[in-house]
Amino acid sequence: MSLILLAIFCSMAALLFAWYQARLVLKESEGTKEMAGIARAIRQGANAYLKRQYTGVAFFFTAMFIILLILSVMGYINIFVPFAYIIGGFFSGLSGFIGMKTATNANARTANAARRSLGSGLRIAFSSGAVMGMVVVGLGLLHLSLAFYFLNNYFSGPDKMQQITTIMLTFGMGTSSMALFARVGGGIFTKAADVGADLVGKVETGIPEDDPRNPAVIADNVGDNVGDVAGMGADLFESYVGAIVSSSSLAVAAGLGMKGAAVPFALAASGIIASIIGTFFVKAGGQEEKSLLRVLRRGVYISSFLMAVMAFFLLKAVFGTGFGGLFSAVLIGLVAGNLIGYFTEYYTSDIYGPTRRLSAIAKSGTGPVIINGLSLGMASTAFPVIIIAIAILSSYYLSGGGDNFNMGLYGIGLAAVGLLSTLGITLATDAYGPVADNAGGIAEMANLPAEVRERTDVLDSLGNTTAATGKGFAIGSAALTSLALIGAYKAQVEALAPAGFEFSLSIVNPPVLTGVFIGSVLPFIFAAMTMNAVGTAAQHIVEEVRRQFKENPGILEGTVEPDYASSVDICTRSAQREMILPTVLGIIAPLLTGLLLGIDAVVGLLAGSTLTGFILAIMMANSGGAWDNAKKYVEVGHYGGKGSESHKAAVIGDTVGDPFKDTAGPSINILIKLMSMVSIVFAAFILQYSIFG
Amino acid sequence: MSLILLAIFCSMAALLFAWYQARLVLKESEGTKEMAGIARAIRQGANAYLKRQYTGVAFFFTAMFIILLILSVMGYINIFVPFAYIIGGFFSGLSGFIGMKTATNANARTANAARRSLGSGLRIAFSSGAVMGMVVVGLGLLHLSLAFYFLNNYFSGPDKMQQITTIMLTFGMGTSSMALFARVGGGIFTKAADVGADLVGKVETGIPEDDPRNPAVIADNVGDNVGDVAGMGADLFESYVGAIVSSSSLAVAAGLGMKGAAVPFALAASGIIASIIGTFFVKAGGQEEKSLLRVLRRGVYISSFLMAVMAFFLLKAVFGTGFGGLFSAVLIGLVAGNLIGYFTEYYTSDIYGPTRRLSAIAKSGTGPVIINGLSLGMASTAFPVIIIAIAILSSYYLSGGGDNFNMGLYGIGLAAVGLLSTLGITLATDAYGPVADNAGGIAEMANLPAEVRERTDVLDSLGNTTAATGKGFAIGSAALTSLALIGAYKAQVEALAPAGFEFSLSIVNPPVLTGVFIGSVLPFIFAAMTMNAVGTAAQHIVEEVRRQFKENPGILEGTVEPDYASSVDICTRSAQREMILPTVLGIIAPLLTGLLLGIDAVVGLLAGSTLTGFILAIMMANSGGAWDNAKKYVEVGHYGGKGSESHKAAVIGDTVGDPFKDTAGPSINILIKLMSMVSIVFAAFILQYSIFG
Repeated sequence: MSLILLAIFCSMAALLFAWYQARLVLKESEGTKEMAGIARAIRQGANAYLKRQYTGVAFFFTAMFIILLILSVMGYINIFVPFAYIIGGFFSGLSGFIGMKTATNANARTANAARRSLGSGLRIAFSSGAVMGMVVVGLGLLHLSLAFYFLNNYFSGPDKMQQITTIMLTFGMGTSSMALFARVGGGIFTKAADVGADLVGKVETGIPEDDPRNPAVIADNVGDNVGDVAGMGADLFESYVGAIVSSSSLAVAAGLGMKGAAVPFALAASGIIASIIGTFFVKAGGQEEKSLLRVLRRGVYISSFLMAVMAFFLLKAVFGTGFGGLFSAVLIGLVAGNLIGYFTEYYTSDIYGPTRRLSAIAKSGTGPVIINGLSLGMASTAFPVIIIAIAILSSYYLSGGGDNFNMGLYGIGLAAVGLLSTLGITLATDAYGPVADNAGGIAEMANLPAEVRERTDVLDSLGNTTAATGKGFAIGSAALTSLALIGAYKAQVEALAPAGFEFSLSIVNPPVLTGVFIGSVLPFIFAAMTMNAVGTAAQHIVEEVRRQFKENPGILEGTVEPDYASSVDICTRSAQREMILPTVLGIIAPLLTGLLLGIDAVVGLLAGSTLTGFILAIMMANSGGAWDNAKKYVEVGHYGGKGSESHKAAVIGDTVGDPFKDTAGPSINILIKLMSMVSIVFAAFILQYSIFG
Repeated sequence: MSLILLAIFCSMAALLFAWYQARLVLKESEGTKEMAGIARAIRQGANAYLKRQYTGVAFFFTAMFIILLILSVMGYINIFVPFAYIIGGFFSGLSGFIGMKTATNANARTANAARRSLGSGLRIAFSSGAVMGMVVVGLGLLHLSLAFYFLNNYFSGPDKMQQITTIMLTFGMGTSSMALFARVGGGIFTKAADVGADLVGKVETGIPEDDPRNPAVIADNVGDNVGDVAGMGADLFESYVGAIVSSSSLAVAAGLGMKGAAVPFALAASGIIASIIGTFFVKAGGQEEKSLLRVLRRGVYISSFLMAVMAFFLLKAVFGTGFGGLFSAVLIGLVAGNLIGYFTEYYTSDIYGPTRRLSAIAKSGTGPVIINGLSLGMASTAFPVIIIAIAILSSYYLSGGGDNFNMGLYGIGLAAVGLLSTLGITLATDAYGPVADNAGGIAEMANLPAEVRERTDVLDSLGNTTAATGKGFAIGSAALTSLALIGAYKAQVEALAPAGFEFSLSIVNPPVLTGVFIGSVLPFIFAAMTMNAVGTAAQHIVEEVRRQFKENPGILEGTVEPDYASSVDICTRSAQREMILPTVLGIIAPLLTGLLLGIDAVVGLLAGSTLTGFILAIMMANSGGAWDNAKKYVEVGHYGGKGSESHKAAVIGDTVGDPFKDTAGPSINILIKLMSMVSIVFAAFILQYSIFG
């Protein structure tokens, strides 16, 4: 229990530190009246969106609450489950909300600080990112550890731990549902605005990005906040919570009891301390992107190192002799995360070969840029898969999976916790990006001197790379967490099933195979749905922008201010409408499979969706990141520079990449975990009513 | 044995019928001197390519032969295995060669016949396709049944059937290796030429497709023959052989003995008769695409119906009572193939909504066309996966898999045979496409009247749809065949393994899971490799065409004939170089996985690659088909027609789709089966030397 108290204490420290960083941000001025005005418009748009999203989500959560309540009254689940679902969703939404508030307050301030120097700009943007990072880990760990503390005192009896873990997993299901809405809705909003603005602005009319004459420009900037900040925050909140609850719940099946269940909490707590210390090492050094990247990396690596040291002593203290295997698992997670991050960077940053070659191909035209970007993404899946495969095998066997299956799974869970333990700082480097992006937009719209825009461009380009790395982390952790969740599902079914029940999980067993088939195709269908949604919404934006240009020629001449609000409104409504179906798919698919094909098929489904989801998510994130940076590489003057045919081809590549990397790709992670948790929560129900199994 | 004699007899009938159809083609004149000249140039290019490809392949086969010979001397495999490997490869190459010879003789004749009427054009092109179809099934079944007959007389003793099936599977491995070379090499050639010709011709210079001024135009037409005829022929030869040998080999494990092993041969023989009868119902009715499609479909449906009737009596005669389950499996295969074909058509033909909507999106620009084409492909995977899942479950359980696992797998194998049994006619409708495409090119280059070109356009557009349907068949059969092969692998290992060996195939067992992970990512890497190869080769073509235009302005003015041979040569060399690595990947991956991670991981690898390979292949084939037809739909006058901005966007979509649908997509099928067969042939070696398992 002292481990849980430690977690409560550290998560409060994270929140305090977030408050301190927010103070740093707010001390800076918003700059000129014009800058403040633009920032206000973005803030209003973002608030309007979030308000509508949360209203829509509230309906969904109410419906799910009622369903869960009925199931709990019928005795299939514990009475705390519906509440845990709501609470998980609430805290996920709250952390997204705080992160977005901070980001929308930091954008103009970052632009203003960049007027002084690059370092000042980086400091403000990074502080804003740190608020997000610390709020996510702080709120995530706090609500889980408080719940754990309470439930531990409340329950007693032999199935106490079983009860507690199911409820803890329901928190995860709540955060996953919320995250899926935030990622999908935010992703549709941001990319519809971005693609729509680019298509008419850059491609058709030839006006630059972030030009105030573009009626979709505010929507585009709002999108950075609702998608890349609020959406990503909810996403990583979910990853963090998912890793902790899944490994914690496996402790019971592994025979480690309360002690083992509390360890993931304590590891997360250590990670918070390591992250806080790490942030102090992020100080702008040189003036160019490479050295800035080094500065950010330094913070992350120092945190990782500290985390490893703390994990060593923590696990030694808890488990005594024989802690080595579990410590190795944590270490494997940390290393795997950083390695996947490195390879993501390698494939998507323009300081390496692949993205540079992609820019060079832009000379041959659009077709080759698309083909090569797609194959770059496909090829980039190899290393992450190998890394995760090695991480699975080694953390499984080192933590004793050879003798005790569940012990091995617990090790995989700890690897996921290890991977995400330093999320406080990795998310800070990641969430800083959209702030820098917005700051650039504001600098452009407020006609700040070219040198300021150049500084924000450097910050923005760096942000693209850290965003890609962050996605690599999220995807890697999702693969490990999903496996741990499959293990948790298996353990849950074994605990609930009538005597004599036996799994028949052979991969050549047709129901399992059928489940794997269905699971494998789901990420593709899900990606198609979300990409189509972006396409449809972008189409509406294109029409709206064209309409405004046509009806009001003064807009392009710069004499009349366009109607920014209408684009924001169109994006909001589209995102609302289109985010429902993909989320429902994630909840219905495992239930239907379970009812029709049985429990074995559900395990197949979860495994299948984890596999293709993992690969597809990496492919989409990396293709998208590479296209974006290849375009930027052309824009700084290579292969013809801005306005050339190469540039046009590269811009189209980026347009295709946008829904890849910011809508479909990152949402897939959440989908696969949501399906696992839905399976776990509804396990008793499925066991009772399945036709086939 | 009488079943085998029946197979020998029917396969000879197929070859005779092919000879008769070839006579029909050759009776037609090649038209004007100009037409004959162009046809000769295409023929020379195609021959030059094939000669070089077969030389390269001969080296590879010799190397593999030596390796297999060493293994057989060491006692790991039977002495017949190396020879079976060579013979399988030889017959696969031979059928591709004959098909291509016919096609390159039929193109100008089709154009000439189209001068008289649409119906005459269809008849010649279809006869040429029928030669291909009948040669593939004839040679495929003939060499297998002769070998079976011989081996059956040669071997005796208790492990006789075991010996025979391993050797039969090695024929499959030979045909798969050959098919992979032909598909990958041919696919690279055809698409590099096509993309290269389009990029400089249509997009940059604005000259029409098949314009004689384009220096890559002959290479483009050669490509249709080496890729879409020889490549596709080898591909379906491999599918056909694979389905027969895998189901035949499962008969032993299922306890059906010789009788069961001979049934797939007899089913294939019935399918030949059904196909021959079906071809007589293909007679041009109306003048438009829809009614032509109906004519082709009529032939296919009549053949399918006849096949079902014959299968009923055949299985009843062989198995007596209790034949119903196996008959259902054959029927399920037939229905599943036609259903997948239907959904492929639905997603890729411009007479249905999805492709029409894709053309409409071309109005919004290139980015949206790409995004929506990709999501169309992703969404189109849902039905085939569901169809295959249902086919697996139902053919498994109906043929008795519930009681006897191997019996169920045999049922799945028979479903694959059922699906492919009417290949004689489905391949005819499929192989007719490239002939029509070539005929159109010749009509254009020889300046035939516009009405002739219009007729060949109708034939060509229809060919796109039948090509897509044919791919659907190939992909569906690959999924079923791969499962049967996984079963055959399992049976093989059980027969070879030392006493006490037990599989541990649970999907949550980490080695299996790791295998699945690696297997899942292989199709992505493979697709990336082949697409990159197309990109690289197309790049060379672009540079060559630009060079010719620049150095010799007379070419564009139409006063100087361009140097056609140089483009053919560039494509040939690129295809040769780039086809090695992907093929080696398919052979090395299962061996390495087996040696490092053990037998269980190999099963995981095969299952994983089948899953993602199946989905990725459908996605790529359908995206590509839809882009192609969306472009054609714009070209006939919708959304601005030829030369409009929509058209430009649609052309780029088609450029991206080309390597999707004609290089990477269809090769994946072969890859997954090759890996299965390699695993089977090397099973004894892996069992001995695996470190882990």
